[in-house]
Amino acid sequence: MEVQNPQHLPFELTKEFLNEIQALIEQDSKEELIAKIEDLFPADITSILYELNGQESKYLVQLLEVKVAAEIISDLDSDDRIKFLKNFTSQEIAVYINEIDSDDAVDILNEQPVRIREEVIALLKDRVQARYIIDLMHYDEDCAGGLMQKELIKINVKQTVTECVEEIRRQAEEVEKVYSVYVVDDDGQLLGTVSLKKIILAKRGSKIQDVFDSDEIVSVPTYMSGEEVADIMQKYDLEAIPVVNIQGRLLGRITIDDVVDFITESAQEDIQVMAGISEDVEEDDSVWLLVRSRLPWLIGGMVGSFLAAKLIEQFDSAISLMPTISAFIPLIGSTGGNVGIQSSSLIVQSLADKSGLDTTFGKRLKKVIVVALINALIAGCFSFACSFLVDNGDTMLSLTVAISLFAVVMLASLMGTLTPLALNQLKINPAVASGPFITTTNDILGYGVYFLIVYLLL
Amino acid sequence: MEVQNPQHLPFELTKEFLNEIQALIEQDSKEELIAKIEDLFPADITSILYELNGQESKYLVQLLEVKVAAEIISDLDSDDRIKFLKNFTSQEIAVYINEIDSDDAVDILNEQPVRIREEVIALLKDRVQARYIIDLMHYDEDCAGGLMQKELIKINVKQTVTECVEEIRRQAEEVEKVYSVYVVDDDGQLLGTVSLKKIILAKRGSKIQDVFDSDEIVSVPTYMSGEEVADIMQKYDLEAIPVVNIQGRLLGRITIDDVVDFITESAQEDIQVMAGISEDVEEDDSVWLLVRSRLPWLIGGMVGSFLAAKLIEQFDSAISLMPTISAFIPLIGSTGGNVGIQSSSLIVQSLADKSGLDTTFGKRLKKVIVVALINALIAGCFSFACSFLVDNGDTMLSLTVAISLFAVVMLASLMGTLTPLALNQLKINPAVASGPFITTTNDILGYGVYFLIVYLLL
Repeated sequence: MEVQNPQHLPFELTKEFLNEIQALIEQDSKEELIAKIEDLFPADITSILYELNGQESKYLVQLLEVKVAAEIISDLDSDDRIKFLKNFTSQEIAVYINEIDSDDAVDILNEQPVRIREEVIALLKDRVQARYIIDLMHYDEDCAGGLMQKELIKINVKQTVTECVEEIRRQAEEVEKVYSVYVVDDDGQLLGTVSLKKIILAKRGSKIQDVFDSDEIVSVPTYMSGEEVADIMQKYDLEAIPVVNIQGRLLGRITIDDVVDFITESAQEDIQVMAGISEDVEEDDSVWLLVRSRLPWLIGGMVGSFLAAKLIEQFDSAISLMPTISAFIPLIGSTGGNVGIQSSSLIVQSLADKSGLDTTFGKRLKKVIVVALINALIAGCFSFACSFLVDNGDTMLSLTVAISLFAVVMLASLMGTLTPLALNQLKINPAVASGPFITTTNDILGYGVYFLIVYLLL
Repeated sequence: MEVQNPQHLPFELTKEFLNEIQALIEQDSKEELIAKIEDLFPADITSILYELNGQESKYLVQLLEVKVAAEIISDLDSDDRIKFLKNFTSQEIAVYINEIDSDDAVDILNEQPVRIREEVIALLKDRVQARYIIDLMHYDEDCAGGLMQKELIKINVKQTVTECVEEIRRQAEEVEKVYSVYVVDDDGQLLGTVSLKKIILAKRGSKIQDVFDSDEIVSVPTYMSGEEVADIMQKYDLEAIPVVNIQGRLLGRITIDDVVDFITESAQEDIQVMAGISEDVEEDDSVWLLVRSRLPWLIGGMVGSFLAAKLIEQFDSAISLMPTISAFIPLIGSTGGNVGIQSSSLIVQSLADKSGLDTTFGKRLKKVIVVALINALIAGCFSFACSFLVDNGDTMLSLTVAISLFAVVMLASLMGTLTPLALNQLKINPAVASGPFITTTNDILGYGVYFLIVYLLL
């Protein structure tokens, strides 16, 4: 690799490289294949697997060292991994699970049917790993307990730096990334940490008691939500955080790579919810999955629109006398929708941001109303000017549209603010209120207001 | 702190605590204040500053050690920091900038007016820091060069582990988080790394040459975009990545905490773009800023709706003969909008996901058309059934609505797919296409199609 890539730049998969790999697999040229991929990082081989079929993938992975293969398997996307592991027996899976960090091992097993899960655990050679896995399976996957791994290095506060170095040596294989050593008392209670930098700089004979930091540590309880853990690690710039039980005993640690994945997935989930996509899908999923993920909100929106149609139909006679009324239906609907989504997104964002004190409900509402008033006034005036142009100078109609728009902006702002707050209280993801749900609701409300004002004024 | 918080749980700011702090500031009780906050982490004091006014904040920060105060200042949100630093002289700012990591120091200085920026750099006591800052100011803030810090520990490949430990000791103050030591040759070319774990386990006398990893390293060039850096660090699970110039010389490193912030900000930006909010605002920004950030898309959407109104007005005579036509306007508009946003979000998401080969344009389009066809057929049939109920059994009108809806779903899917792809080609954030822009465009197109079909069939 040194000669090929002196700047150590990241590997990029090309069509040519992929074709070569596929040809070598077909020719069963094991040695050439190994020569071609042995200098790649596991994550690069993972990106190749995404482009191969099940049989090709299995062939390639079985050429690799077990440790590398295990890392690749734990790297795969959940959907792809389920398909991939279908080609393996429980015995084969157990060999890989032995080598995978306990948190990832649990995630992988949880994707499998119960029978395979039990078989694999029973077949694990490493009984410590089996115990870790069984321990971790108790926790919900989105809380600190579900995100933590059991692999970490801990040392009793009464020991010495020399013993600590020995412990690191003993576990060097097991614990890939160390960052710091956790210091506990005889009861396993977390007292503090020693960073690797400190261990390097400390005299070998010194006591842990004299070198460790007791106040430079933050831990989280097992039941804390993944979002809160992510916020805390981000706030304190941590690369790992210890997880403790209610008595303060050290149970495991969460590393930043898992939290980064968690943050990315949560953001993607929120965007999908806003877009009215009801399942976690990607562009390259099957057509059936793509259709299924989009239909619920599509049909939901249509039901809302038919309710609106039923409402508008009540005003058939008015419309037939003055058909221009109907030309402003889109204005009312889309302005209401836009305002609603703007309002709800701001609230959702501020609910997600945990820094500082919570804004009180009253203060929040007051501000929303002031902003809504200004926007509504501007929108109303702008609309009066524009509709005057559209309806050829009918002052009364322009006034009706402007007043309706004012009311719709006010109403949509309030709805867009109150709905996510209510959902949050009910422990439902408030981002739901930034999607088709709020648009549809605001549409119907808006048409109601518009035709009410038409009825009153015209 | 030990006694108060034996589990080392994260600090939570309460209203009571804040009131005490404010009271102590007012009473000018320096010692009591220090006692109250000295056990807190800098990030916790930052969260207190968000609730204080400028004078109170300055008073509090000036009580702290310079190093702690510097960390708090680099922790603050950009907007709040600008306000906060208005209370300080260039001389005072320089004292803090001396202690801040070079990447953060540059971010802070870039927020200041040019005059203050130049003054602060001239006033810096630490001339190495001044050189670092001037170096880093050349880079765009969203590329690898702009995200990197100059603080890192490097060692010549010809040196020994003992010398490496001495280098770590010498720089222990300067480089807070080490992770690993970078190995370079006489020209400063990056050859590899040694992890701290390896240094601990290696014999002190060994040569770096014999212990370092030359193939376990990925570096990025200065011009790489922040998104790509984030993807690479996430793909390879890195806590720091070295940045090299075109000749492979080591220039700096990017640490995971900055990348996490970058990921979070990018996700938030995308959500705001989707919600039609045109500036980076938060709920607690000023009313004026909130109004200003929302008006452009609000007015933009209204202009679109007035164009739609002009279009619908052309069909006044048809509507006055058959007013029920207008009852289906919301159905056409909102279904088109929903479908467009669903399509564009999927494409935006898959454009952001760099793993694997790019899907070819033809393949992508084929799949989009298949999914759209199925959705359009289902939507059309569903609508036929529903509109039959709404318009009291008028087969011809129901058919017109169903055909229009079919056409609108197809059209909106295509628009929702092609717009982000085109924006991406033009190097504009494709998320723009998931917001009001795509809804408004689809609205107008949809009404056009609907009234065309009304005109043809009825």
